[in-house]
This record gives sequence, structure tokens and C-alpha cells, in this order.
Amino acid sequence: MTQNIYDDPGFHAGYSRLPRSVEGLAGAPEWPALRALLPELRGRRVVDLGCGYGWFCRWAADQGAAEVLGLDVSEKMLERARAETGAAGERVAVRYARADLETLDLPAAAFDLAYSSLAFHYIADLGRLFATVHRALVPGARFVFSIEHPIFMAPTNPAWQQGAEGRTVWPLDSYLAEGPRTTDWFAPGVVKHHRTIGTTLNLLIGLGFAIRHVEEWRPTDEQIAARPEWAKELDRPMFLLIAAAR
Amino acid sequence: MTQNIYDDPGFHAGYSRLPRSVEGLAGAPEWPALRALLPELRGRRVVDLGCGYGWFCRWAADQGAAEVLGLDVSEKMLERARAETGAAGERVAVRYARADLETLDLPAAAFDLAYSSLAFHYIADLGRLFATVHRALVPGARFVFSIEHPIFMAPTNPAWQQGAEGRTVWPLDSYLAEGPRTTDWFAPGVVKHHRTIGTTLNLLIGLGFAIRHVEEWRPTDEQIAARPEWAKELDRPMFLLIAAAR
Repeated sequence: MTQNIYDDPGFHAGYSRLPRSVEGLAGAPEWPALRALLPELRGRRVVDLGCGYGWFCRWAADQGAAEVLGLDVSEKMLERARAETGAAGERVAVRYARADLETLDLPAAAFDLAYSSLAFHYIADLGRLFATVHRALVPGARFVFSIEHPIFMAPTNPAWQQGAEGRTVWPLDSYLAEGPRTTDWFAPGVVKHHRTIGTTLNLLIGLGFAIRHVEEWRPTDEQIAARPEWAKELDRPMFLLIAAAR
Repeated sequence: MTQNIYDDPGFHAGYSRLPRSVEGLAGAPEWPALRALLPELRGRRVVDLGCGYGWFCRWAADQGAAEVLGLDVSEKMLERARAETGAAGERVAVRYARADLETLDLPAAAFDLAYSSLAFHYIADLGRLFATVHRALVPGARFVFSIEHPIFMAPTNPAWQQGAEGRTVWPLDSYLAEGPRTTDWFAPGVVKHHRTIGTTLNLLIGLGFAIRHVEEWRPTDEQIAARPEWAKELDRPMFLLIAAAR
């Protein structure tokens, strides 16, 4: 099954202090760009693959989604997701379930939107998962997700370095060598699966998805004005956002 | 108009000695991958945008294409293209014309395939050119092209460097800062236009093209076995290949 790093105590302690864990969608700088790719949610059936603390599920319910199914492999995250969703008292449309995305089954033609934020780079068999999503969506449904950008994930040493002329550079290597990448991020030995953009898009196309938008996310000029340290994010993309239609 | 670097004597002298200039398609390591994206050409009308010495135009004619129009801004290249095409005596289907791709006009619904090899990264207004191509293709027609990969084009110093731990790395920066890049390649001051993969794909999608394949080219295992020095090409992609349908 998928490495369940999110239930590792050390990892979880670190992850839970990230802005996106504390502030939710507002703490995720790529959220406005991802939201812009979403269809109108009123009356729609939504599945969130790797729902974490359930921020998106609650937002989708608040947008009027008819049903929201949040799936995650982490018990710790689902526990908090359930507690915070119930607290609103009125989000009866949201349901959470534990699921390993590597072996997931979903009912056929049951959803109008499949959504995922920063989960798929943990998946070894993305083709299987995409096929499961395709089957679970009705014709015309949308599939919108973000992953770590492969440029961010590929290098042997994924950390800024001083370039030859003193400029900070991202030391890219191994970009075309797809496969696992093991890094230390809040815990040692976090395993991610590197694929090129082309591979991810061709998996979708091969299943019959129509690619609607591909965004190598960058902070907006307004975001950089507010947080000047984000200007260095223009040097290499951290997130890849993809929207497809069934 | 587009910088016509190919008619610069120094540039042309250098370019004309590249394997792909001497050996043609067989000297271009990405050609087998690009060819695999092409439709059957027999009886089809083909336009080659940036045809250079005409290698592809002659190949298309030899595949049985009904009409082949090769367009290029370089007089020197067109001259050689005409001489070599005429030499076969039987390639009456091929016609060459001088054209600046920045200001190109094409007849509507006149082609079944638009092809381009390593030309579009010289184009400042790619949206205009893509719209021209879309109008020139019949419904169902294919648009297949290669460009320099944006990872290759983006950096301030696009050259291998020693990384922090002695490994050779590609010093990526400015990937999300789109715009002109001026480099020295056979001549000083060659101007290319850097765009992310997302930008190029979204231009196509916005015009109504369906993305059929996206390939961040890598040498095959067979190519690396034959040319071990190409193994370093796995560290960063040099070419981006895209196939779309009108």
C-alpha cells in the first residue's frame, strides 16, 4: 500500500504546522489558481482524493455540492477532518472514508468532479488510479488536481544551490529518469514518484480525458508584492495544476 | 520580423555542420519519436513551418503526400532545399516559399497536417501563429511539432555546472519568467522566446486543439547504448514534442 507517512508522528507534527494545515485553503498559495479550474459545484457530486484535514471537502459543501466524499489513507487526518466538518453542524453532504489510492475502488459514473491536491506524487501506479477515476466520473465531468511539479521532485539534491556566477539555481538532474524519489521532509525517507509532465498528461489522454488546462504554478505579482521572498519561486515551479474533462 | 539568424554567415556555417544538417532526419535523435506522432501521409496536404533544408518535406513527398509546402525565413536554407528536392526529379508535390512565421498567412482549411521542427521557440507571438495554423487545417487534421524544451531554454546560464556534491547539474532558474532569452549559439545574440509547457498547451487548447501527446524527449536505451555520452541527456530534457488534433 501507499507509504502512509502522514500518520508518522514526527511527520504529522511538522505537517500540521504548515500554513496550509493551520489556515486551510487560504494558507495554500496555489489555491486561487486551482479554484479557478473548478466547475460550478452547486448540486454536484464530488470526490476528493487525498482529502487530508478536509478543507476542500468543507469548502465544496459550502459551495452547495450535493455530495462530497473525502478519501485519505491517514487516520489522523480523517479524524480531524470529521471533527471539523461536524462542528459546522450543517455539512451533512460530506462523508469521509479511509482509502489507499493505490488500490482504490469507486462506484461507476458516481461523480461530477474528482479533485486532488498534492497527493498523486505519492502514488506508484498512477495509471491504475486515473482509470479508476475515469470510470467513477460521468461523461462531461471534470478532473482537477495538483501535484508537486516534476522539476521540483526530480533532482538528486532538491535544494537551492549557488550557481557558477553566484546566482541561486535549482540543480536539476535526472528529470528524464522517472521513478521513486526518497527525501527527508518532516521525516526521513518520504517516498515520492517522479514522472515527467508528458507522462502524466499522456496517461490522461490515453484513458480518453480531454486536457483542459495545464498550469505550472507561479506566485502572482500581488503575492510577490505581499511576500517578496516568494520571488525566488519564479526560478523553478513547485506545483503543477491540471484540469481535464471526462 | 523574426530574427533571421539562419542567414547570418557565421551561424549558417556552424549550423550547416550539425549532424541534422548533414545527415538530415537520421541525424536528429528525436526524429523517431516525432515521426511516431505523425498520421499516415499518403494523399495528404502538408505544411512544414520552418522547413530548413527541406529534409522533412522530401520525406513527406516520399511517403506519398499529395502536396507539401515548406516555409522558411532563410533564403540560404530554401535555396539548398529547392536544389536537393529538385535533384530527385520526381518530387513535384513539394513547393517552397519564403515566409516569416510571425506574420504568416495561410489559406483556410488547406492542410491535413501542420508540422514544425525546432522553429517555434524563435517566435514571439506564438498565439497568432497557432491561430493561423488552426484556420489553415481541416477538421480532424493534425498539428505535430517540436520545440526546444523550456527547461533547456529558461536558465540565465544554460550550461552544465558542477553541483554541490560533484554531480553535474543543469542550473535552472527563471523557469517561470517567460520572455526572450538571448544566447550565443554559432553566432552571438540568438534570440529565443521562453514559455512554460503549460503556456504552450493552453494556447493550443484555447484555440480548440485537442492535445493528443506531449513528450519530453529522452534518448532511448538503444541510443544511449550506441552513444554512451548521451546518458547525460537524461538529466534535463532538450526537446519538447507535441501532437494535437484540429
